[in-house]
Amino acid sequence: MPELRKDPITGRWVIIATDRAKRPGDFIRQTVPPASAKVCPFDYGNEHKTPPELLAYRNSGGRDEPGWRVRVIPNKFPVLGIEGELTRQGDGMYDKMNGIGAHEVIIETPDHAATLSEMPEKQIEELFWAFKERVCDLKKDRRFRYIMLFRNHGEAAGASLEHPHSQLIALPVIPDAVKEELDGARQFHDLKERCIYCDIIRQETSAGARLVTETDRFTVIEPYAPRFPFETWILPKRHESHFEDSDAALTANLAWIVRTTLRKIDKVLERPPYNFIVHSAPVQEPFLPYYHWHLEIIPKLTKVAGFEWGSGFYINPTPPEESAKFLRDAGLA
Amino acid sequence: MPELRKDPITGRWVIIATDRAKRPGDFIRQTVPPASAKVCPFDYGNEHKTPPELLAYRNSGGRDEPGWRVRVIPNKFPVLGIEGELTRQGDGMYDKMNGIGAHEVIIETPDHAATLSEMPEKQIEELFWAFKERVCDLKKDRRFRYIMLFRNHGEAAGASLEHPHSQLIALPVIPDAVKEELDGARQFHDLKERCIYCDIIRQETSAGARLVTETDRFTVIEPYAPRFPFETWILPKRHESHFEDSDAALTANLAWIVRTTLRKIDKVLERPPYNFIVHSAPVQEPFLPYYHWHLEIIPKLTKVAGFEWGSGFYINPTPPEESAKFLRDAGLA
Repeated sequence: MPELRKDPITGRWVIIATDRAKRPGDFIRQTVPPASAKVCPFDYGNEHKTPPELLAYRNSGGRDEPGWRVRVIPNKFPVLGIEGELTRQGDGMYDKMNGIGAHEVIIETPDHAATLSEMPEKQIEELFWAFKERVCDLKKDRRFRYIMLFRNHGEAAGASLEHPHSQLIALPVIPDAVKEELDGARQFHDLKERCIYCDIIRQETSAGARLVTETDRFTVIEPYAPRFPFETWILPKRHESHFEDSDAALTANLAWIVRTTLRKIDKVLERPPYNFIVHSAPVQEPFLPYYHWHLEIIPKLTKVAGFEWGSGFYINPTPPEESAKFLRDAGLA
Repeated sequence: MPELRKDPITGRWVIIATDRAKRPGDFIRQTVPPASAKVCPFDYGNEHKTPPELLAYRNSGGRDEPGWRVRVIPNKFPVLGIEGELTRQGDGMYDKMNGIGAHEVIIETPDHAATLSEMPEKQIEELFWAFKERVCDLKKDRRFRYIMLFRNHGEAAGASLEHPHSQLIALPVIPDAVKEELDGARQFHDLKERCIYCDIIRQETSAGARLVTETDRFTVIEPYAPRFPFETWILPKRHESHFEDSDAALTANLAWIVRTTLRKIDKVLERPPYNFIVHSAPVQEPFLPYYHWHLEIIPKLTKVAGFEWGSGFYINPTPPEESAKFLRDAGLA
């Protein structure tokens, strides 16, 4: 018998289709192929082919020269522009504003063929440091209310360049999915005076069925009502609303846990395309007692998308208890 | 300069990336291939390969025999089961219920190779009659709070069988996207004592830039803040909250306008995969002054999906004013 489950944060119902339960091997496989050596604007020596860098961690060389380990640049084809004043205006009965924002690319390594799950931990740690540094710089700009940090891996997940990179989009509005989480978490806190994510961590740690792995500082779970097979959340154990406030020890441990989790996913699902998204509190807000930053990883396994997009109704063929078990059994932790 | 636009119903912000504006020819083309003659459980003579029919409009023959024009059957692999009592229960801090519901398939024609845009109008009209008849039957079951009517066309849009068919899912809960629409429309009505969709129809008809076509009874528009390129809405001009309450004249005209709109889309985008979804009020609700049923068509043109899924943040490379112009210029109206 399938089950309807409610996400406790957003209130979204999903169908967990236990009768059609799918094992990892049942999914359409689209292993991300190893990167081939093409001319790439993100490789050493091609620094002049990108906009001037905003930040780099270097072994040698000067600005826009080789020798960097991580390099942050403005996106050459930004979805939003950084220049100009933010003006909100009406348009008949509608509301719009000009597209002010920032769109940056974090080049994670000079090694064109590297993958995040195979990189040295130190490299991943520096990626997260670059995330933090850019967020702290951009949040000084009061026009920006939300900063999205995300990674598309593989063409099927939306990556148009294969060189390992993440992206940052600073927005003058709060995205819908974040607003839903904030509203749900605030309502829970109003009622219980507790953070709902902290409650989830406690419940999942004690129950264990949806627990993938944990460290002193992080818990990795398959959520109770996932929209997608093998949707995976990485949550810091200590309550913290803003990702950018993570200290050095947490950032180091985050690198380890992200690498470990991606290696498990790579092993069980044969290097699938995926997206990861950092969910964090709006940057202009102070510390929030009710919101808890976390990272969501969504492997791209299923094709049936348009219907879900249009209806907001998700049918997930893999119970999270099963995907958690596959990931636990994959070892590597 | 790109624009941020707010959907007036749900409050969702989207980026309309005017700088990267895409014309129809810029999209990844995945024309749906003509159906090939394989053994198909939906063809004449294979009625015994499907579960027994629930409804059929026939020229000849008896139950589960050839001679039908439209045939409705339970889905052989339902995502929800019809049998049993609906029980809600807690699961630690979570909420779940057993997967009670109905999942039916509406076989739209015995002609395996037909497409909705090429079918006789009469055939499409009968599809909508079958929708209405099944909804009116199922809504007597008080366990069902929402009935989704939708169509996936082409493999990329989630269709697993090529024989022309639509689907129905009756649910004991209200899907998230519908809830957002209901809440937004109710808030607007509380404030203005008008239906927001009626206001949209008036504004779009008088402005004209996003108007695709209209009849005496229907308005076809590209919405102000579409999530997807060429997202198209078909709205009845007269306020009506429930699709199943459409009268015979409206149903006949709906068939005409759906066919015309799909033919425009087929012409401009070279027979793309698409989804359409009927958005209607919850079936156990009486007439609602604030909600307005409509049909949304979403051609599947872009690949970048995972990020949008995870973030709820949509970047649309085609301003609706441009897509509306392409569809208007396609003629056929």
